Amino acid sequence: MPAPLPALALGGDYNPEQWPPEVLAEDVLLMQEAGVNLVTVGVFSWALLEPEPGHFEFGWLDDVMDRLHAGGIRVDLATATASPPPWLTRSHPEILPVLADGTTLWQGGRQAYCPSSPVFAEHSLRLCRAMAERYADHDALALWHVSNELGCHNALCYCDVSAEAFRRWLTDKYGNIDTLNHAWGTAFWSQHYASFDEILPPRTAPTFPNPTQQLDFHRFSSDQLLANFVAERDLLHELSPGVPVTTNLMVMEHTRNMDYLAWGPELDVVSNDHYMLAELPSARAELAFSADLVRGVSRGRPWIVMEQSSSAVNWQPRNLAKRPGEMLRASMQHVARGADGILYFQWRASRAGAEKYHSALVPHAGTDSRLWREVVEMGATLRAVAEVAGSTSDNQAAILVDWDARWGCELDSHPSVDVRYLDRPRAFHAALTARGVGVDVVHPSTDLSSYSLIVVPTLYLCTDAVAESVAAAAEGGATVVVTYFSGIVDENDHVRLGGYPGAFRELLGIRTEEFRPLLAGDSVHLDDGTTADVWTEHLGLAGAEAVVSYLDGPSAGLPAVTRRAVGSGAAWYVATRTDAVGTERLVDAVLVEAGVRPVAEVPPDVEVTRRRAADGRSWVFVINHTEQPIRVAVAGHELVTDTECGAGGCQVEAGAVAVIREV
Amino acid sequence: MPAPLPALALGGDYNPEQWPPEVLAEDVLLMQEAGVNLVTVGVFSWALLEPEPGHFEFGWLDDVMDRLHAGGIRVDLATATASPPPWLTRSHPEILPVLADGTTLWQGGRQAYCPSSPVFAEHSLRLCRAMAERYADHDALALWHVSNELGCHNALCYCDVSAEAFRRWLTDKYGNIDTLNHAWGTAFWSQHYASFDEILPPRTAPTFPNPTQQLDFHRFSSDQLLANFVAERDLLHELSPGVPVTTNLMVMEHTRNMDYLAWGPELDVVSNDHYMLAELPSARAELAFSADLVRGVSRGRPWIVMEQSSSAVNWQPRNLAKRPGEMLRASMQHVARGADGILYFQWRASRAGAEKYHSALVPHAGTDSRLWREVVEMGATLRAVAEVAGSTSDNQAAILVDWDARWGCELDSHPSVDVRYLDRPRAFHAALTARGVGVDVVHPSTDLSSYSLIVVPTLYLCTDAVAESVAAAAEGGATVVVTYFSGIVDENDHVRLGGYPGAFRELLGIRTEEFRPLLAGDSVHLDDGTTADVWTEHLGLAGAEAVVSYLDGPSAGLPAVTRRAVGSGAAWYVATRTDAVGTERLVDAVLVEAGVRPVAEVPPDVEVTRRRAADGRSWVFVINHTEQPIRVAVAGHELVTDTECGAGGCQVEAGAVAVIREV
Amino acid sequence: MPAPLPALALGGDYNPEQWPPEVLAEDVLLMQEAGVNLVTVGVFSWALLEPEPGHFEFGWLDDVMDRLHAGGIRVDLATATASPPPWLTRSHPEILPVLADGTTLWQGGRQAYCPSSPVFAEHSLRLCRAMAERYADHDALALWHVSNELGCHNALCYCDVSAEAFRRWLTDKYGNIDTLNHAWGTAFWSQHYASFDEILPPRTAPTFPNPTQQLDFHRFSSDQLLANFVAERDLLHELSPGVPVTTNLMVMEHTRNMDYLAWGPELDVVSNDHYMLAELPSARAELAFSADLVRGVSRGRPWIVMEQSSSAVNWQPRNLAKRPGEMLRASMQHVARGADGILYFQWRASRAGAEKYHSALVPHAGTDSRLWREVVEMGATLRAVAEVAGSTSDNQAAILVDWDARWGCELDSHPSVDVRYLDRPRAFHAALTARGVGVDVVHPSTDLSSYSLIVVPTLYLCTDAVAESVAAAAEGGATVVVTYFSGIVDENDHVRLGGYPGAFRELLGIRTEEFRPLLAGDSVHLDDGTTADVWTEHLGLAGAEAVVSYLDGPSAGLPAVTRRAVGSGAAWYVATRTDAVGTERLVDAVLVEAGVRPVAEVPPDVEVTRRRAADGRSWVFVINHTEQPIRVAVAGHELVTDTECGAGGCQVEAGAVAVIREV
Repeated sequence: MPAPLPALALGGDYNPEQWPPEVLAEDVLLMQEAGVNLVTVGVFSWALLEPEPGHFEFGWLDDVMDRLHAGGIRVDLATATASPPPWLTRSHPEILPVLADGTTLWQGGRQAYCPSSPVFAEHSLRLCRAMAERYADHDALALWHVSNELGCHNALCYCDVSAEAFRRWLTDKYGNIDTLNHAWGTAFWSQHYASFDEILPPRTAPTFPNPTQQLDFHRFSSDQLLANFVAERDLLHELSPGVPVTTNLMVMEHTRNMDYLAWGPELDVVSNDHYMLAELPSARAELAFSADLVRGVSRGRPWIVMEQSSSAVNWQPRNLAKRPGEMLRASMQHVARGADGILYFQWRASRAGAEKYHSALVPHAGTDSRLWREVVEMGATLRAVAEVAGSTSDNQAAILVDWDARWGCELDSHPSVDVRYLDRPRAFHAALTARGVGVDVVHPSTDLSSYSLIVVPTLYLCTDAVAESVAAAAEGGATVVVTYFSGIVDENDHVRLGGYPGAFRELLGIRTEEFRPLLAGDSVHLDDGTTADVWTEHLGLAGAEAVVSYLDGPSAGLPAVTRRAVGSGAAWYVATRTDAVGTERLVDAVLVEAGVRPVAEVPPDVEVTRRRAADGRSWVFVINHTEQPIRVAVAGHELVTDTECGAGGCQVEAGAVAVIREV
Repeated sequence: MPAPLPALALGGDYNPEQWPPEVLAEDVLLMQEAGVNLVTVGVFSWALLEPEPGHFEFGWLDDVMDRLHAGGIRVDLATATASPPPWLTRSHPEILPVLADGTTLWQGGRQAYCPSSPVFAEHSLRLCRAMAERYADHDALALWHVSNELGCHNALCYCDVSAEAFRRWLTDKYGNIDTLNHAWGTAFWSQHYASFDEILPPRTAPTFPNPTQQLDFHRFSSDQLLANFVAERDLLHELSPGVPVTTNLMVMEHTRNMDYLAWGPELDVVSNDHYMLAELPSARAELAFSADLVRGVSRGRPWIVMEQSSSAVNWQPRNLAKRPGEMLRASMQHVARGADGILYFQWRASRAGAEKYHSALVPHAGTDSRLWREVVEMGATLRAVAEVAGSTSDNQAAILVDWDARWGCELDSHPSVDVRYLDRPRAFHAALTARGVGVDVVHPSTDLSSYSLIVVPTLYLCTDAVAESVAAAAEGGATVVVTYFSGIVDENDHVRLGGYPGAFRELLGIRTEEFRPLLAGDSVHLDDGTTADVWTEHLGLAGAEAVVSYLDGPSAGLPAVTRRAVGSGAAWYVATRTDAVGTERLVDAVLVEAGVRPVAEVPPDVEVTRRRAADGRSWVFVINHTEQPIRVAVAGHELVTDTECGAGGCQVEAGAVAVIREV
Repeated sequence: MPAPLPALALGGDYNPEQWPPEVLAEDVLLMQEAGVNLVTVGVFSWALLEPEPGHFEFGWLDDVMDRLHAGGIRVDLATATASPPPWLTRSHPEILPVLADGTTLWQGGRQAYCPSSPVFAEHSLRLCRAMAERYADHDALALWHVSNELGCHNALCYCDVSAEAFRRWLTDKYGNIDTLNHAWGTAFWSQHYASFDEILPPRTAPTFPNPTQQLDFHRFSSDQLLANFVAERDLLHELSPGVPVTTNLMVMEHTRNMDYLAWGPELDVVSNDHYMLAELPSARAELAFSADLVRGVSRGRPWIVMEQSSSAVNWQPRNLAKRPGEMLRASMQHVARGADGILYFQWRASRAGAEKYHSALVPHAGTDSRLWREVVEMGATLRAVAEVAGSTSDNQAAILVDWDARWGCELDSHPSVDVRYLDRPRAFHAALTARGVGVDVVHPSTDLSSYSLIVVPTLYLCTDAVAESVAAAAEGGATVVVTYFSGIVDENDHVRLGGYPGAFRELLGIRTEEFRPLLAGDSVHLDDGTTADVWTEHLGLAGAEAVVSYLDGPSAGLPAVTRRAVGSGAAWYVATRTDAVGTERLVDAVLVEAGVRPVAEVPPDVEVTRRRAADGRSWVFVINHTEQPIRVAVAGHELVTDTECGAGGCQVEAGAVAVIREV
């Protein structure tokens, strides 16, 4: 009988096939020492499990499963379809992905398949079926893990097979070619299509391909990858009923091709891979944002970190090791924002292959190492806070994020390449986090009625329904903050005419005649002391008041930040890219107006969040990223150190994490 | 009966097919309000006009033509062959252009065809014929507009069809393979050809392809594009006699593949597209240079700005809006330098497609906008100065520019990548402009006898005839200024031996043993205070005197600027890349020597030019780019403000344009 | 009868086929004037020698050979197979090389062939045979010159023909597929191969291709190029017995694909092409290192500079001319480090083609030029020092360099892209050179017993045998210096477990738990005043003592430089990238410890080396790169100026070269 998922899971990818058999016994003992209770098995084992077409060799995997079960370790079992074996790509080269410029991506790495390939689907589903039939009833099984990081390297395939699938997808979407012609604006540049048969993916063209074609190709590509998941999931539901199915998403800085907010509802359990990018100004702020976004993908429910690194990775130009304590803090950032499981890639550092310099729980140096001692401490910490499992959040502030808007915002042929979609969501998330405010990162179609503060950052593309929902929230009392390049186009990437930002012009009480972006390196000054860059506008007031104005630059004297009272709420507009200080100043103003209270007031570089259980219990998480002890005004029982925090609040040591059950 | 072109035209590209029918009526009224008298129709309408092969739908265009005529608006009618429709590229993928590395450029953008394709020619000429037959006698018709920006994205095609055409072109040029072998220097690197059949375009090779092959491929490619124009033009001349034919060139910073000086004589009316590049140090200086070069292409005759932007474009990384008044000044720069028409891309800003963020005459915000008000002002200004139409120039200074030299100069495997062909022509043009001197930018084969000052900048490649013509001009009294890397090779890119610069060594009275370029960021100092970079030479005097010498660097102590008295003139050589101050110092010296007088003395950032009519009337144009009023010592009647300027000269307000009919 | 090589050769590539016949007579006279005694003929003449398949035209070459012989000039005769003629690539496009991304490299440049092509082999060996049969007995012949710069542009070919050859090479190496699967670590990422038939070259993949596959592809590619040489060499040995055979290597900054240390034993005479890179911080230090490495390739025997430039080259972005005297100094650097011949590319500067701006012995300007006068001086200098011919070296210090380690070190997916393989060998070579110490640059398998100081820089990959040899040298009394990222993996790129650096951990008495690289631009400070960057480690002592420690950065407080006494020697470890001062400080310490004496103490920018003859005579070379005269404490007879240097040592003028026969 399959087992339930551990309440708070600890573990990682486990690839014993890379090691001599005797290592397996040692591994189970070490897992027990660290408190590992869930490992992912089989992710990249297709070529070993099916060394020839249709010939399966499960013996070694049976042994792994049995020994893990005997050791009390549950298994997140991969369907092993993540990367086709060489025999498949050699006999069917037509499944290889092809870039926009016609470059074929060959075997030799991983994930060398076209997501629309029926040949790949046939072979991967055959393997998935075989796996399900073999292990559906295994006692170690706790979770099915479909494929791996779907779309990591092959999300956008431009091959002829993809072209055919794209045409089918478009036919389904538009029904007739006239509708597509209107949606894509093909009257321009002689792009009118007489039939769906004439359409291709947006391959490398003499100049910018049609923007709506590009946008639809993004939607199609994300849908194809999701369809790959759904096909396996449905098979697993049929053959292995009752066992939840996941696939590990990649909500992090450098992935943008999968519309995870659309994927979320299809996953029984949302799981995410997250890696910190050494070269970001604040990798930990990015982690916090991504974790809140994963909770949005999971629609508030707890989720799992399926992969992260214990220390350095190997695929960045320069791969920094984590400082002492950093692994624990980063992991607990995830728990603080809703994760009920902390897994790593991978259990034991490989000695060969492309990821051998990726850190692991058992490093090359072995267990006599700082890293292993921190892994053991991590396990102890998770056991200490296990009671938070299953709890969720109750934040008053929301940031709206949408993949359609992201793809649209970053299309070519736009006013400025410096308008990057995630820039403003991150900036507002960081400013709210610095104020100790918990924030949800959600899809614009989310019910907004429970939020007091709603940030709408660079929501370039939005539907009428979203515009109405945002306006209704303001009417109903919320403070809404819209930033530049929001509400510009509809779902077909058609400009909303009559003055920008068309979708929010009335709500905001403004009318922008013209965008006035800045050159790289140029900046402007505002009359509240803020410095800003990238963007300004020729903005006129039409009901709003000017809160802040430009002192210089191409829009000198015009409003840069405006506010309009709306119903029992208000609508603010930010027409430029404020620096961090300016964004915090703005956030202070709207927090007061919206009546949003922080979880606790915190000094810089300290994070505080709250999880709340259905039974009303709540826990405050404090992550002290500083090198000094700090005190937080929260009373209750601190779980990690098992101490009481009285009226004076709770002291959290330098670099430490506290989890306080509130009284 | 077709109509003549307006004397001074105002208008733009008009694409009503992108809009619902009711917009057309509004458009005509607005055009009348602004004084628009010429619009370009049908540029990208192939797919709508011929939705299936050989099936034409002209109804909608008939209606547009009729309504424009009814509104008094004349039409520059495109042959609509600018971009093949999807049905053509899908049924004939062999017409798609191919890059040097084998990458195919697909449909989805625009202009996806190989200029040498007979299939494309067959289809485009069929359309051209149908258009001519339909509209040759239409009352609105004033000008035929062949294709659009020929070669903008597809100038260099390396496909097999192009290869075959290249071989034919070479056979025509060289007659026999031995001549080609000698011209290309194929004795080196085992490149000897036994027959023309063995030749390919200079596709991506293990290392530098043969330079003369590259040069001939540039010549061939430009010729093929021109042949596309000529084929349509000849058909139009036959079917629509009396109506002039143009195609819109792209004389501006970032186009280099079309030898427009060779194209000019083939056009009934020269028209040009010009867009300012935000990231240039001085976009307006580039505009002035390009406008003078267009006049050179037009061999002195008035020409038309077929496209420019009213404000921002959409295809640069960061697209700056024009400042208030900037559109008027930029447009009048063109008129000041010989343009008799000012058209824009486009009339009404698109709401969809790849150019929707390109500014237009009617912006997304509508006519209640700064931009529209400036458009109306532009129309009034053109009406006020209409009398200048048809006038030309009478400048004493010339700068020689040549596409063969440009392509040759910028070939790979050269002494320094920092020798960019247009750098010195622009620098001398800017220095002359700063002194209020009018200057022609002409082909080296132009009759030079009327010029007192002739600048020969980086004329890397030149024929013996050009060298003789320049020497004869100096003999006849002109001051000639030759800059480094001029006269180095003959028309086959063979070095002229015996010391550089072979073609001008005798004229200049110098002999350079060796080039001594500088590393990036390095500079040298000259003994007149000038700083210079990029280039120095080991130069010896052989009849010339040293005017300026290097103080430091690899050529310290050697001459950097020389002068030799020649007949009744003189020949100067500039062996390094002088900075702006040094170039102006040099220009001051040669202006005095040559006896060239400015149109008027002007402060920095003010442009002054003169147009002169056949009847002797003349007009001085003053463009005040500064933020202060200035006074210019020109007497006459100022047309824009309709005021007299007496002996004290004429005051021109901050940011204003004046056009003074001289007394 | 073929002639022996000149004792000290002077000459260059001679391409008379580019010139009219009358030039040949002038050339021979000029060669005599300069003292040229050896020229390379026919390198790129395939297309002229065999204008049609199988039809040879030797007449012109006969004439060149005869005239050179009559003038007393010996010939290094190329087999002319360097670049296939157009007829071959047009009739057999399957021989064209293909990049990893599928891009074909076409004719038009040079060397457009796949090194594994049997078609190319058939044609090139037919030509080689014809050349050998024709000229084996020619009196001018002194040396056979196979191909030219093998692998310069086509070293890594990914075409299907290469794929087939790669599979054969792998089958030969591994015998069975299981062995390959283990070596490549294919258990990861589903890469398991069922048979050799499934394998491809590491073509562009969705992400990092398998590292061991990449490493083996490098080995294979180098072996294929060497096999091309060996096939021609064997044919020449058979048909032209007694005449030595060479091919010109490219030991210099920017070539890395040929394992020349493995090639060396196959060449009868080692010859090398060396070009200085203008943008290097010290091009002359790179030259010195490369020359010592060529001597390593030649296993100590004298060698020939087959190509260098007299002044500028033409293929760098900015090609600097050599300063007066620089050609002589650079050439004598080679002689000082074991060269017995100084040849240049090329005799007479071309007037056409891709290399026309490459300097030559006879420049475009002709013989009335600084350059020609320096060429004549160069000839006189070589005659003055001719007695050094045949002498070798007797250095006490060695630097170990290995192509396997180089390829391995610079694979992707590593901890830091800033760890560049040649960086540390060069840095230690420069520090030793600055101290006047002669140094051999040799393969790790070299007998190390004669060295007192052995530097092991970033020897990422090494075999057990090498590790044992290095340890034995330390045991035997040598001082060994190992730098970071050495001894990390075995020959299959498998990590040596248990703590880094696995192969040297015991010898060094340390154990590193984790690499801690730095971001670009970051640096750390050491407690001896050194600044370092790129790399630090979490290093623990296990028998060694800490010599220097980090003051800051991620490893603050830990050892950065360690030393362990070993047998009668010692083993040092350098765990970070010390700056130049820090490296010199370290070198000073180990020189004292190792008892290595300099040839002479020299001020900065002066090089000093010694050559020693079998009969015991020795010569000290002094290259004064400064602009001041210097004095060196060497007594003997200075050959260039033919003067005696007494007890006070020898004065060497500014910019001059001295060669002192020691007493």
